[in-house]
Amino acid sequence: MWQRKHLLGIGELSADDIREILDKAQNYRQTALDEDKSSNAFAGKRVVLMFFENSTRTRVSFELAAERIGASVTAMSMDTSSVKKGESMFDTVRTIDAMGFDCMVIRHGSSGVPWQASRAVSASVVNAGDGTHEHPTQALLDMLTIRQHKTRIEGLRVGIIGDILHSRVARSNVIGLKKLGAGVVLIGPPTLVPDSFRAMGAEINYDLDDAIHQCDVLMLLRIQTERLGGQSFPSIREYCHFYRLDRARMLRARPDVLVMHPGPINRGVEISPEVADGANAVILEQVSNGVAVRMAVLDILMQG
Amino acid sequence: MWQRKHLLGIGELSADDIREILDKAQNYRQTALDEDKSSNAFAGKRVVLMFFENSTRTRVSFELAAERIGASVTAMSMDTSSVKKGESMFDTVRTIDAMGFDCMVIRHGSSGVPWQASRAVSASVVNAGDGTHEHPTQALLDMLTIRQHKTRIEGLRVGIIGDILHSRVARSNVIGLKKLGAGVVLIGPPTLVPDSFRAMGAEINYDLDDAIHQCDVLMLLRIQTERLGGQSFPSIREYCHFYRLDRARMLRARPDVLVMHPGPINRGVEISPEVADGANAVILEQVSNGVAVRMAVLDILMQG
Amino acid sequence: MWQRKHLLGIGELSADDIREILDKAQNYRQTALDEDKSSNAFAGKRVVLMFFENSTRTRVSFELAAERIGASVTAMSMDTSSVKKGESMFDTVRTIDAMGFDCMVIRHGSSGVPWQASRAVSASVVNAGDGTHEHPTQALLDMLTIRQHKTRIEGLRVGIIGDILHSRVARSNVIGLKKLGAGVVLIGPPTLVPDSFRAMGAEINYDLDDAIHQCDVLMLLRIQTERLGGQSFPSIREYCHFYRLDRARMLRARPDVLVMHPGPINRGVEISPEVADGANAVILEQVSNGVAVRMAVLDILMQG
Repeated sequence: MWQRKHLLGIGELSADDIREILDKAQNYRQTALDEDKSSNAFAGKRVVLMFFENSTRTRVSFELAAERIGASVTAMSMDTSSVKKGESMFDTVRTIDAMGFDCMVIRHGSSGVPWQASRAVSASVVNAGDGTHEHPTQALLDMLTIRQHKTRIEGLRVGIIGDILHSRVARSNVIGLKKLGAGVVLIGPPTLVPDSFRAMGAEINYDLDDAIHQCDVLMLLRIQTERLGGQSFPSIREYCHFYRLDRARMLRARPDVLVMHPGPINRGVEISPEVADGANAVILEQVSNGVAVRMAVLDILMQG
Repeated sequence: MWQRKHLLGIGELSADDIREILDKAQNYRQTALDEDKSSNAFAGKRVVLMFFENSTRTRVSFELAAERIGASVTAMSMDTSSVKKGESMFDTVRTIDAMGFDCMVIRHGSSGVPWQASRAVSASVVNAGDGTHEHPTQALLDMLTIRQHKTRIEGLRVGIIGDILHSRVARSNVIGLKKLGAGVVLIGPPTLVPDSFRAMGAEINYDLDDAIHQCDVLMLLRIQTERLGGQSFPSIREYCHFYRLDRARMLRARPDVLVMHPGPINRGVEISPEVADGANAVILEQVSNGVAVRMAVLDILMQG
Repeated sequence: MWQRKHLLGIGELSADDIREILDKAQNYRQTALDEDKSSNAFAGKRVVLMFFENSTRTRVSFELAAERIGASVTAMSMDTSSVKKGESMFDTVRTIDAMGFDCMVIRHGSSGVPWQASRAVSASVVNAGDGTHEHPTQALLDMLTIRQHKTRIEGLRVGIIGDILHSRVARSNVIGLKKLGAGVVLIGPPTLVPDSFRAMGAEINYDLDDAIHQCDVLMLLRIQTERLGGQSFPSIREYCHFYRLDRARMLRARPDVLVMHPGPINRGVEISPEVADGANAVILEQVSNGVAVRMAVLDILMQG
């Protein structure tokens, strides 16, 4: 049984906590989304979205999730806020909290901000992505999607491909997948796949062509092309040559491999259009599951 | 009876389709707006507004329309979205679609985007203005306003004055008014009134003073002053001299002529303040009718 | 009994008007906020927020207030609107009004805009801050907070400290506090404390250390550091030396003095962190009361 006030990261959750969210999300997936049922179970509850870092898709996903369980939702675009007037983040979140919200969803470019906020406010805090630290709802929707297709997570082998170093999505997934008993192999150039991840129980393989046939799931990460060519990045041409998932490479993969991507996709960079739109890709299902997972998270946190 | 899934332009509608929307809008005008009745008929239905091109008035009009029929509405300001991160328009609309919307209202600076989107998503698509192509809800609200004042559209003569070349409002109106049996005369300098519109059944007259007395309706278009003085534009002084609707020119018009403008108005450029605020102007009624027309469009598309 | 259509400033209100709002707000504070009860009393009523000047906290506060009394709310960020396309403010507000709102909340950098708008529209207008003129809901929430802690306002002595010259918060408070029978002393450097305020019945004292022990309430104003060092401003170091409320200065204040601030705070400039977070500070209560006061204002104006 869930005992927490906040959702700050996958790291703090037990395997049972994760399963409780996934089960509830699965349930919402079937009723609210597939059968198009809304609920008023949380009427009167109030959610505020504080996105210090822009992300239209994540914001809209949380917005919809709140509405579908009947809560009201206020979206704040923090780039035009008092933060610009020199107010401290601490005062900003306490001020918003004083207006009377039940749940505060925070996205921020600096690791640890949702945790700091959780110490300062009376609302429940959900981390919607903080720096290079965690992005728990993304990992939860990824795990839900895997479980739907593979019926289980335990014993699977999941390859995560790309810029592991800067990816909170990778971090949250490694932690969560290990807790549920999957094996994780991190794939990418050595400059982007830090050795430190071995301590979290992940394997490392710099050679996608070597690792690909062992994987039940291939999770691609978005390559931020503006970073390519820098010190720790190969050129874009070199990256694509070794790590892009295209039709040729898919021939080496298992026939039933799941191809996943958190979006937004850079077509032609980390993934080729035929693969992104191909039969193994579940990228749009991830998006749909994102709403269900966020409904479940808001439900569990505002239950208390 | 309405059979379409999307509203992409007036061009694809039959005269009966147009009349069906106008009748429903007229009905909403009387109940929802004049008697201030809201409805919950579409509770649980979800509308998303994707405005790749800014337009506060059109966005708010759709937002209100959705709320007044009881639907939920999510407004996305696309300039801060993944589009900036290199995501293709195709992936953006499919991602949002995967979150589960019933209707997607799209405004975009490029002609054809709503049509392309309609091929890629499961939601109904409404074109809220695309490039120089169409702006169907604007033409519908214009036709509703004319019908309210003139009781019919058939047999009327409507003058459209200004930058016809770049105006999707003009295009949608020419198409719709012709379908309902009105005569349309396009008025402006030759550089802004393309001959190609004759093929759509419109007359062309470069001389407003000559054409004005034949018109039952004068529809002014906004002159984008930043374009004036360019290659295809006369100077602003010259434009005003020949085409501004002012008190002197109104003396040549029919006493019961309707003066219309889609807004925003450039007072003193295409219209003088006395005329904009005068007894023949129905500019604010157009705005009110805009909400009613959008209620009708959302209603008809989400009915299915 | 309330007879007004608009709330444009404290200046136009009688003492009874002010008390009527405070009583209603006090009631909302207890039910809606403390007991977390929402209301549908104003279902079908429509509020539009037109913020020509950014203020996330004030916007969110009005948004929440409207929702909690059951009204629908549309927030417009006016910096991306038709205003940029050359439309006059007059046409903008009339256009929005024509869409059918019951209440229009306006914030604008120029004094008098809400008043002008109130002459042009059919909705009730609330001034959410205009230039250096008034910010009535801020003064009302301040008076509510004082009354809650001191049980009365009459006979109290309130010190307002800082940039009085540019502060609409100071103006509205001086007017309101005088009407309710309090004494007001304005404190700051002579360049920022204009003599003209004496005409409104306020005392002036340039010496905080001299005035502090006579005050039941200390209202700090935000110092806009970008103005410091200019012609009418001392250096930031000098300002802090004479006017910052810090622990040392608090020793000279009455033990039960209320420390207030409209936010956002510049920690370390006009107030030290120990005082901002100390036992006398009621800054977050002001924020909570802000929602209650705005519920009361919207309620009273939309009642009719």
